[in-house]
Amino acid sequence: MIVVMKAHTEKENIEAIIEKIQTLGYLPHPIYGVERTVVGAVGSEKERERVMEILGNMPGVERVVPILKPYKLASYEVKQGPSSIRINGGIEIGPGKIRVIAGPCSVETEEQIVETAKIVKAAGAHALRGGAYKPRTSPYAFQGMEKEGLKLLDIARRETGLPVVTEVLNPKDVDLVEAFADVLQIGARNVQNFPLLKAVGGIKKPVLLKRGMSTTIKEWLMSAEYILSEGNQDVILCERGIRTFETATRNTLDLSAIPVLREETHLPVIVDPSHGTGYRSYVAPMAYAAIAAGCDGLMVEVHPRPDEAWSDGAQSLTPEMFSEMMAKVKIFTEAVGRSLD
Amino acid sequence: MIVVMKAHTEKENIEAIIEKIQTLGYLPHPIYGVERTVVGAVGSEKERERVMEILGNMPGVERVVPILKPYKLASYEVKQGPSSIRINGGIEIGPGKIRVIAGPCSVETEEQIVETAKIVKAAGAHALRGGAYKPRTSPYAFQGMEKEGLKLLDIARRETGLPVVTEVLNPKDVDLVEAFADVLQIGARNVQNFPLLKAVGGIKKPVLLKRGMSTTIKEWLMSAEYILSEGNQDVILCERGIRTFETATRNTLDLSAIPVLREETHLPVIVDPSHGTGYRSYVAPMAYAAIAAGCDGLMVEVHPRPDEAWSDGAQSLTPEMFSEMMAKVKIFTEAVGRSLD
Amino acid sequence: MIVVMKAHTEKENIEAIIEKIQTLGYLPHPIYGVERTVVGAVGSEKERERVMEILGNMPGVERVVPILKPYKLASYEVKQGPSSIRINGGIEIGPGKIRVIAGPCSVETEEQIVETAKIVKAAGAHALRGGAYKPRTSPYAFQGMEKEGLKLLDIARRETGLPVVTEVLNPKDVDLVEAFADVLQIGARNVQNFPLLKAVGGIKKPVLLKRGMSTTIKEWLMSAEYILSEGNQDVILCERGIRTFETATRNTLDLSAIPVLREETHLPVIVDPSHGTGYRSYVAPMAYAAIAAGCDGLMVEVHPRPDEAWSDGAQSLTPEMFSEMMAKVKIFTEAVGRSLD
Amino acid sequence: MIVVMKAHTEKENIEAIIEKIQTLGYLPHPIYGVERTVVGAVGSEKERERVMEILGNMPGVERVVPILKPYKLASYEVKQGPSSIRINGGIEIGPGKIRVIAGPCSVETEEQIVETAKIVKAAGAHALRGGAYKPRTSPYAFQGMEKEGLKLLDIARRETGLPVVTEVLNPKDVDLVEAFADVLQIGARNVQNFPLLKAVGGIKKPVLLKRGMSTTIKEWLMSAEYILSEGNQDVILCERGIRTFETATRNTLDLSAIPVLREETHLPVIVDPSHGTGYRSYVAPMAYAAIAAGCDGLMVEVHPRPDEAWSDGAQSLTPEMFSEMMAKVKIFTEAVGRSLD
Repeated sequence: MIVVMKAHTEKENIEAIIEKIQTLGYLPHPIYGVERTVVGAVGSEKERERVMEILGNMPGVERVVPILKPYKLASYEVKQGPSSIRINGGIEIGPGKIRVIAGPCSVETEEQIVETAKIVKAAGAHALRGGAYKPRTSPYAFQGMEKEGLKLLDIARRETGLPVVTEVLNPKDVDLVEAFADVLQIGARNVQNFPLLKAVGGIKKPVLLKRGMSTTIKEWLMSAEYILSEGNQDVILCERGIRTFETATRNTLDLSAIPVLREETHLPVIVDPSHGTGYRSYVAPMAYAAIAAGCDGLMVEVHPRPDEAWSDGAQSLTPEMFSEMMAKVKIFTEAVGRSLD
Repeated sequence: MIVVMKAHTEKENIEAIIEKIQTLGYLPHPIYGVERTVVGAVGSEKERERVMEILGNMPGVERVVPILKPYKLASYEVKQGPSSIRINGGIEIGPGKIRVIAGPCSVETEEQIVETAKIVKAAGAHALRGGAYKPRTSPYAFQGMEKEGLKLLDIARRETGLPVVTEVLNPKDVDLVEAFADVLQIGARNVQNFPLLKAVGGIKKPVLLKRGMSTTIKEWLMSAEYILSEGNQDVILCERGIRTFETATRNTLDLSAIPVLREETHLPVIVDPSHGTGYRSYVAPMAYAAIAAGCDGLMVEVHPRPDEAWSDGAQSLTPEMFSEMMAKVKIFTEAVGRSLD
Repeated sequence: MIVVMKAHTEKENIEAIIEKIQTLGYLPHPIYGVERTVVGAVGSEKERERVMEILGNMPGVERVVPILKPYKLASYEVKQGPSSIRINGGIEIGPGKIRVIAGPCSVETEEQIVETAKIVKAAGAHALRGGAYKPRTSPYAFQGMEKEGLKLLDIARRETGLPVVTEVLNPKDVDLVEAFADVLQIGARNVQNFPLLKAVGGIKKPVLLKRGMSTTIKEWLMSAEYILSEGNQDVILCERGIRTFETATRNTLDLSAIPVLREETHLPVIVDPSHGTGYRSYVAPMAYAAIAAGCDGLMVEVHPRPDEAWSDGAQSLTPEMFSEMMAKVKIFTEAVGRSLD
Repeated sequence: MIVVMKAHTEKENIEAIIEKIQTLGYLPHPIYGVERTVVGAVGSEKERERVMEILGNMPGVERVVPILKPYKLASYEVKQGPSSIRINGGIEIGPGKIRVIAGPCSVETEEQIVETAKIVKAAGAHALRGGAYKPRTSPYAFQGMEKEGLKLLDIARRETGLPVVTEVLNPKDVDLVEAFADVLQIGARNVQNFPLLKAVGGIKKPVLLKRGMSTTIKEWLMSAEYILSEGNQDVILCERGIRTFETATRNTLDLSAIPVLREETHLPVIVDPSHGTGYRSYVAPMAYAAIAAGCDGLMVEVHPRPDEAWSDGAQSLTPEMFSEMMAKVKIFTEAVGRSLD
């Protein structure tokens, strides 16, 4: 790390920094500039957070600039090459493939979820999504069918063979959801719910970690690191839009996160254009764009009758729209040299 | 609510909307414009979320505009006049008063927390803050002393008589934290952690609800509504800065939230200029500004030796800075016609 | 428009609104709700801005909701179907085509601009970009070669036949730049420089209007409307990223603006992934994504030796990178059923 | 500056950097870390922008971190202590004072501007604001009375003795506006209109420079530097809110900019709570907060009959509200140890 001293700092402040760096077990490298001095500190990065904190608090210091990545397990520093994550002994998410997870926002009835599962499977989807626990802004809005919903997802899986992706909100429900789901989803609002991240870090099933509404890519990777550092190496990142000043879309889908993440992490990256845009007419173009930008898959909301959906109807595709989209997804998958199979 | 139809919508779409509004038990009021038709729907607001969803999904509809507030218990529609919340039979937070909650970011040692408690009490603080459970971006950073920290807070309370404000992160810890704390804090990252909000909605102690980094004032009040609707009426709102493009400060402290909240809710509002700015030299000016803007109190980080703090040292005041600030806080408290007693 | 009255407004306020609406030549349509009244106002949209202002200021009014689009000439209300804009009697930008504008950030020397023009032409670009007037954050940074730069662009055009796109900053330079350029660019910082917009609204050459860093899509279209309403119908919109909290990229490229604009306007839309991301390694993936999302073209920075560029070197492609990108652009152009010819 | 190399960069890249730093006339200071090398470059800061550009473009470089401020004339590096700016031989804006500039958004009629001038003078304002050239989002909205408006401002000044602050939009109008105004305002949309900044940098009258909607404090000071570097040392900064995701207010008034600017620049800072909030009921609390936070003055919109205003009526104070506010402004001015006289 680099300690940048304030302009014209007293000599004793600089000496104090140099001494403190040594005390902390690091090697100091002062550079005396015309108006300002900076001091490099070389050594183990293990205690970095605390050391930066200590040095940053000392008199005469303007700021401390980190040099290495704060995430280890998520970065290429630990693992070379992109990861491929296998879901329940079946499909893999990772290089060379495009995987499509589709289904309704919420599980509503057995008929609805089974019907949707059949529809999305027929159109070529690889996994079924559906919320049993729903995080809703209003306490008066539908909160999900909870355990009953998990059972309906299980029925849909048995009817179609599609693996199931579903969200968990409370650390105490992790075991229950793990018993039913093939992939556990951590939603945008819980990207920094650290007890929940630790809880899913202790399970054996893959975790789909959505980006938060105002989470930087760096923070998002730190949240992935929480899961990885608890022992669960199967983390799938899902870009779903960030909050900006623009109101024409529900969120601003940040597709440039894809190439950035490719440079920063070996974890697979999928994109949710449904939450990312909030309007069904924008979903397909952004799905194609996501594939072209290099993602490993899509997560899309589909409802047999969006106008009757209990939540997120405005952004759900009709079965017809989904089929049409999948036909074009194939074209873009080929254009990037990947495969849907 | 008002259903705005798309320009030149077919007549049958409009008729379908009118019929659906009636079916849902509402009274339709179509207004046929030159280029566009809108249809008012008058009736109970109880099922509003679902009805807006349904109508918004129908063909020919551009958008549905709500008319009433989505929060009831937090609004003046239910309770006239500002609320005053009593902490553990002692001080009240609400109109006419300015209350100052001060202390370290984290509880570190018995010596540190007791020393800080005595310092802030001597300077005039009304309550002690200190984190036992710490939400940290990095899994490798100090995560708090947990139950041990709660016990140290208890010691500090007994030594000084100051009530204790401390954060809870996990619904399963709510009972434990309630046993030790006088006020339970919900941090910015958990503002939409709905299981946690429901859990603290079921307790008897006041809850200090921080605004999230990208939470609108409306969403924040919806989160308060989660707590209120579970039966706990003692919610204190705490503005602590929002995330913007500006990097000169850690967050952008949104003081205009104070007058907005005054119009929207009866709940008391305090301000945290420490997290709001991230640098100790900006804390005092923003504390004065917050009082001038009409808040009911402050939450400020103070550490006996900020350069040794285990977290947030850069934004912690020294004891001397805190004393100086409190002397001026008195002046601004008088300027707004409130009292520190 | 719809006038939403405050809850429990006095009857006389409502009557005053109804009367005022009539006075203004509109037809009032009150809807008396249980807790709240709204009043529709039907009539000419010509004076809308002023009428909304007046009604919004009246006692008892909470807000006024517009119903029609505030832009006319940019919208489909005036022109059906997408526009195609011909550049100097040559190539067209619009449906069915993908057009690539490439070149250095700044014109530096005759050798540099002619060399770059030849390189980008050889790789398949349709037009040359290059800045002669440079808007730079610092007054101490290189400000462009001005008229000398325009002359060098003219030389490059004569050597290659590529039409030239270049920026104008000052209304007084519009005539001069028009004399040399084939397309005049309005940069992000000038998207609401209204005297400049009016000035380019009065010329005969196409205008490439970049989105501002914090411009909503609606405001951007209003800026286009400034140009259109002065008589120049040849406006090309260029998405180039918006400012958000994310710092991993220079801006956040908002590709969802493409499908939004397709619904809102007949004007062609191109994308600048160089400014949109700020790093050359992210340019190509975002270029492919932009095409997949449905844009009409790209604007890309290319420099023969980016490490010697006088500005924006970090985001400039090398000639090799540009050639590779163009080969893949062809694949994605075909995937969307368009043509580079 | 500090050149941070990528992890595990080849040795030859590091050697190339060291050599290039020497060639550019700087002294290189490499620090070889365990995983990464950084190279300090010590020397003149004059050519900094260009040198950072060059080094940042070289192979193996991750980023270049500047050490000194990019603005010189605006910083304390050049001028010690806060500046006080005298307006037309009369009042001063700077330390020890609070100055209030008040008036309508737009000049509408002689009667309106003279009446307002008398009202705000009677209530204690020090200067009159009023727009003759209006930057409006829509080309169809009222664009200001232009030269006629300037003449009416002159009449109001002669009737009341209040100096006049008014906006200029086009470089070609600078001479004309200078002939009528006492202070020239550069609006938020023009904060990076560099030809306009250069133009007002060449005049003899003070310039009031508003912050842009998405301008960082650093960029804002760079814009001030444009004016200062042209020779005009009389720049007053005006915070007026930034664009964020929050929609409860028109903008988010960033009062923490005040203490940040106090550390960064000697220039005086005033605050515009009218544009900063967008609603008249929020103006007074934010005005008090601004004074408490340490600003040097206020700019406030006042209209004799806001419900008839041609622009910005919703945020204009009535004469009664302004008088009441001024009475309280006196209390807060005394609380900060300043004077309105």
